[in-house]
Amino acid sequence: MNKVAVGVNGYGVIGKRVADAILMQPDMELVGVADIATDWRIASVANRLPIFAATEDARLAMTVAGLRPRGTLDELVELSDIIIDTTPKHVAAGNLERYRTAGVKAVFQGGESHATTGHSFVAQANYDSALGRDTTRVVSCNTTSIVRVLGALDTAGLLLRARGVLIRRATDPWESHLGGIMNTMVPEPSIPSHQGPDAQTVLPGLDLVTIAAKGAHTQTHNHYWTIQLTRPATRDEVIAALRAAPRIAFIRISDGLVALNSTIELMRDLGRPRGDMWEVAVWEDLVTVQGDEVFLTYQVYNEAIVIPETIDAIRALTKLAPDAASSMAITDSTLGMRKDFLSAQLP
Amino acid sequence: MNKVAVGVNGYGVIGKRVADAILMQPDMELVGVADIATDWRIASVANRLPIFAATEDARLAMTVAGLRPRGTLDELVELSDIIIDTTPKHVAAGNLERYRTAGVKAVFQGGESHATTGHSFVAQANYDSALGRDTTRVVSCNTTSIVRVLGALDTAGLLLRARGVLIRRATDPWESHLGGIMNTMVPEPSIPSHQGPDAQTVLPGLDLVTIAAKGAHTQTHNHYWTIQLTRPATRDEVIAALRAAPRIAFIRISDGLVALNSTIELMRDLGRPRGDMWEVAVWEDLVTVQGDEVFLTYQVYNEAIVIPETIDAIRALTKLAPDAASSMAITDSTLGMRKDFLSAQLP
Repeated sequence: MNKVAVGVNGYGVIGKRVADAILMQPDMELVGVADIATDWRIASVANRLPIFAATEDARLAMTVAGLRPRGTLDELVELSDIIIDTTPKHVAAGNLERYRTAGVKAVFQGGESHATTGHSFVAQANYDSALGRDTTRVVSCNTTSIVRVLGALDTAGLLLRARGVLIRRATDPWESHLGGIMNTMVPEPSIPSHQGPDAQTVLPGLDLVTIAAKGAHTQTHNHYWTIQLTRPATRDEVIAALRAAPRIAFIRISDGLVALNSTIELMRDLGRPRGDMWEVAVWEDLVTVQGDEVFLTYQVYNEAIVIPETIDAIRALTKLAPDAASSMAITDSTLGMRKDFLSAQLP
Repeated sequence: MNKVAVGVNGYGVIGKRVADAILMQPDMELVGVADIATDWRIASVANRLPIFAATEDARLAMTVAGLRPRGTLDELVELSDIIIDTTPKHVAAGNLERYRTAGVKAVFQGGESHATTGHSFVAQANYDSALGRDTTRVVSCNTTSIVRVLGALDTAGLLLRARGVLIRRATDPWESHLGGIMNTMVPEPSIPSHQGPDAQTVLPGLDLVTIAAKGAHTQTHNHYWTIQLTRPATRDEVIAALRAAPRIAFIRISDGLVALNSTIELMRDLGRPRGDMWEVAVWEDLVTVQGDEVFLTYQVYNEAIVIPETIDAIRALTKLAPDAASSMAITDSTLGMRKDFLSAQLP
């Protein structure tokens, strides 16, 4: 099989997950990961991953730390057919010209603006329009979840308009010592929050407004949606529309999955890498329909949900797979994605 | 002036605030507070308040603890024209018959059902229908806030329907050692949550649905509303409708009141008793209008918001004041209620 050579620039929350997912793909080869860190973050994987220094300074520091980098970012770019840039917000956009000059394709993350690449990506929504492009941008965790869930209702012809309240996690778990949000809630300073317009970069027709706030917890986002349907519908119809869409998995309060932490613990018990949940977890027994309105509650694992999209974006840009279905089939089976986490179906 | 003799049964989060507020009213006399606690909770006020034991056992325990109770609940009831029952949920309902038999009026709190009293109370909404009744129930903190805010839009003829997401505090601050909710969010197990139907016990005509969850913070609730208006309106009209209603006070993110904790700190700086906020604090700069929709974000101080309502309920049941406006005028001026906490108006 023709393997695509993939380099990952930035070995942080997203980068390390992307690297591991690439290692699981039969049609991709991980040629290296680049970063500037020289501590446990890189030392813990230096024996199993090809490490590159993102800068000349980092190369010196890594060498001093005994990490033996194989080269710098320029050399990683040269070895790669495509670069996944998971460096911090705005750092990534600054790398765009370097990738263009080197003639390498590039996938950016949701921290960058739509304008950086001119294309925003969610596999099930618009894989086709990314086919063969030089660059795309995998939208953020919250936006990905919105496109999956509202897109499912839209595909079923049920969505008229949606209004959502997004309670975001305070900070990422690994950065919690830097200070997060304790014992309070922090509303975003404007309505709509950015996730609504961001989802429209993928599904321009959606009528949606998002209101966001940060909560005093570090793991996963939590969305509460009020959705007006195009017509009165039954609860079964709504559930069927969600079930028909990929990468949405049902959970139930009646199964004891009563809060964000119980789902997180289940992922650990299932042996998921890092306890990740790539699916959007919709509480099936909270799906409530009143006439032409549906109320939805779901959980978004912000560290993990964009990983499958990033893998599919690689296939779209490099034309490794001709359509979303064939790419997603490989991604979902290699990662072990599920359609539900109901007790009757576990493990 | 003819003073009404008021007894408070239950000296907890609500009871102690009610007792202090009664002491500030020119037309009320606090004849005593009853409880079963014998520790710091009672010891800290035994010198300044008339203490009664809620039970015979408690009388013995209080005496052993050196608290010198003046009698038991039966004796407090005998001395009182009206009892404010702030004992725990369901304990209060069990006391109803005792008050009836003794011929004393009684005000219950939102933990009891509407059926317990047949009347639910928010001063500005239905003071008149409580006039001279034997009992009423001051609705819960969240419900009080909903009636105030949605009632204001309804009074202005603007409210068609409202859908709200209520992020509740995990536990009360003083009980935090008993265990609360840490680093997670806990959705309520059904939609609509009980606050919507509860608000309809006061304003039966409201079309509203509430979705609730508990957050990992201990102080104050936080509401996010999507409201459909009866017609397209301007932002100024909506703000004017809220400003016209009592017991709603504006705050602004642009004044640095950026989260629940900043408002809490402001209340402490203003010298409020226990740092209480009796008003609903609406973020004025988050009031967002799109056509016939308005998005509202506000903060509810769960420990304090029902205190003015409870004082007004005393006046309604005992006919101390003939209408809501005259009762609320006394309550609001004695407590020092405000219409806004904008920097330009402080202190």
